[in-house]
Amino acid sequence: MTRYAPEVLTAFCTDVLVASGVRQPVAATVAASLIYADVRGVDSHGVLRLPIYVRRVREGMVDVEREPGIIEDRGATALLDGGNNFGAYVGQKALDLAIERARRHGVATIAVRRSNHFGTAAYFAEQAAAGGLIAVIVSNASQTMPPTGGVRPFLGTNPLAIAAPSGGVSPFLLDMATSQVARGKIIAAARRGEPIPEGWAIDAAGQPTRDAEAGLAGAVLPLGGAKGYGLSMAIDILAGVLTGAGYGPYVRNMYEDWDNPQDVGHAFILIDIAAFMPLSSFVARMREYLGLLKTEPRAPGVAEILFAGEYEHRLAEGTRESGIALSPALVQELAVLAKDLAVAPPVPIVTPLDLRGAAAAGS
Amino acid sequence: MTRYAPEVLTAFCTDVLVASGVRQPVAATVAASLIYADVRGVDSHGVLRLPIYVRRVREGMVDVEREPGIIEDRGATALLDGGNNFGAYVGQKALDLAIERARRHGVATIAVRRSNHFGTAAYFAEQAAAGGLIAVIVSNASQTMPPTGGVRPFLGTNPLAIAAPSGGVSPFLLDMATSQVARGKIIAAARRGEPIPEGWAIDAAGQPTRDAEAGLAGAVLPLGGAKGYGLSMAIDILAGVLTGAGYGPYVRNMYEDWDNPQDVGHAFILIDIAAFMPLSSFVARMREYLGLLKTEPRAPGVAEILFAGEYEHRLAEGTRESGIALSPALVQELAVLAKDLAVAPPVPIVTPLDLRGAAAAGS
Repeated sequence: MTRYAPEVLTAFCTDVLVASGVRQPVAATVAASLIYADVRGVDSHGVLRLPIYVRRVREGMVDVEREPGIIEDRGATALLDGGNNFGAYVGQKALDLAIERARRHGVATIAVRRSNHFGTAAYFAEQAAAGGLIAVIVSNASQTMPPTGGVRPFLGTNPLAIAAPSGGVSPFLLDMATSQVARGKIIAAARRGEPIPEGWAIDAAGQPTRDAEAGLAGAVLPLGGAKGYGLSMAIDILAGVLTGAGYGPYVRNMYEDWDNPQDVGHAFILIDIAAFMPLSSFVARMREYLGLLKTEPRAPGVAEILFAGEYEHRLAEGTRESGIALSPALVQELAVLAKDLAVAPPVPIVTPLDLRGAAAAGS
Repeated sequence: MTRYAPEVLTAFCTDVLVASGVRQPVAATVAASLIYADVRGVDSHGVLRLPIYVRRVREGMVDVEREPGIIEDRGATALLDGGNNFGAYVGQKALDLAIERARRHGVATIAVRRSNHFGTAAYFAEQAAAGGLIAVIVSNASQTMPPTGGVRPFLGTNPLAIAAPSGGVSPFLLDMATSQVARGKIIAAARRGEPIPEGWAIDAAGQPTRDAEAGLAGAVLPLGGAKGYGLSMAIDILAGVLTGAGYGPYVRNMYEDWDNPQDVGHAFILIDIAAFMPLSSFVARMREYLGLLKTEPRAPGVAEILFAGEYEHRLAEGTRESGIALSPALVQELAVLAKDLAVAPPVPIVTPLDLRGAAAAGS
């Protein structure tokens, strides 16, 4: 594995996107979202996605010129047309609007059509929590999961993020796919050539599989059966049916469909805590809540009971120090991308150990 | 099993509550919520709960006089004090307000503190969907589930309901506990003396169990591990921390705590579809969506792919015809209640088969 400083990878991603014809503010937002995921150890939504993002631009599947625009507006609600720009950029515009509207009305719902893969939902949810809001953010995604009783992908692993300020260093930050696991984790396992645990996926014939590639060819299973199926469909209704975006089969696969834009939809529901109680009171209540949680008796081998987002937050502190580790295959893929676009490749972190190794090799 | 017409049981529940000192409109709403659950086959939230509801009133744990009141109001948002009245009644007041506010602002969030067990969340969600709204309704509940890494109950099985009009006879209506199963189903199994499937619960020592009573003494497990844990806590934050209600250990157990009101909290997030597109367009999109779903290839033995709420809706059609079946133990419990309160017991449905049996016995 090769390690990179987050700032270095952010700058590299931005440069690559700009060299692909993406405007600077769009490129910077997409890069920030990708590196945010890598820093938190969510590599499935990190720089791993840069090559496919660039290819979508090259093939004319993403419209990097068009600004998202409001097409319905009732104050506390608005419907945005994403203009088929990058999901992270469209999502950021929607989030900014949702924050402004939630502060004015106490609650806001911004629905988005004609968008693309928006990366990790936590990227947006954490910003809302930092602003004193509770965020419920959903997106649909292309088909990867069968409905209960079905045998082939019909629904996406439609993610749900819920965040709230905690009064501590890490916000409460749940960011979950409605699958037993995130499809990105199966992609990452396939990339590493590793098997996947039982119960994650079925193969193309509808049979359980532990082969990551076979799972990608088949279907990821919904979280806990009918509940995950229902939750995924509820998100598709909010993010797809209500917004005028694609839903079910009409959300196009970013990796496989080169004839159509993805037409992903999102919904941002933000609640201003101050409309219910002073933020300081809320935060004091959260502190007490988490204090109680931390003192609960633990199962053998469990050092600490963590709340949603806490593990990733700690990982992020470490990653900012030690850098983001990328696999040799990904490093190679990024090098090809850099060469193609005449962008300087990212400079890795050189550790004392690397220097000793290099000295030994050179001697 | 003895069968009763839904109207007969509704009238009986209302009479019992009124005889317990509950005002008519409160009693009627609570009864409607209980029988709604029984009609849909969700017996864990049905008339099974009437005896404990009555006992809570008798012991002064529910304040049946106090009307819910608005204590914060910003138009699209409001905070209700439930006044420690019955959850179904408080919930109905919150729902009515949420519908009115969502129609005016496009979205509304009504948060509720100082309430009680509000029955099945579907009762409220279905009303919202019937009114052309999308509903996201949550409530917290007393401690039944350990956090991931914990060994004893800390969180409730905090339910989540999401509903939307479908354009068909049954709305899309997801009503799920954030546990692997609803605690009520373990209560029902214990009442029937039946074992529970593996993975539903741990016993008081933190070990997996298939004994329903042992599971009730221990803890129900969260849905799919960390995801269900995170979801349950997110609901506790929305319904408990944000509202000023109890959360975690401060939501009191309806069956065990006779010193304190439950202090349950709820949150009703309603979205007016008309703020995004004409309801007719939304419904047309839902119809197409569900049409696609219904034609998906099915696993062996699956006659039809159903969406959330559809099974319960069909069951309801059957129950309205054939009546609600109650177990001998519950019939006996209701008879005792009726006698105590000098209320006429409910008259069961007499079938031709019963008449033949009676004739044979009499001959």
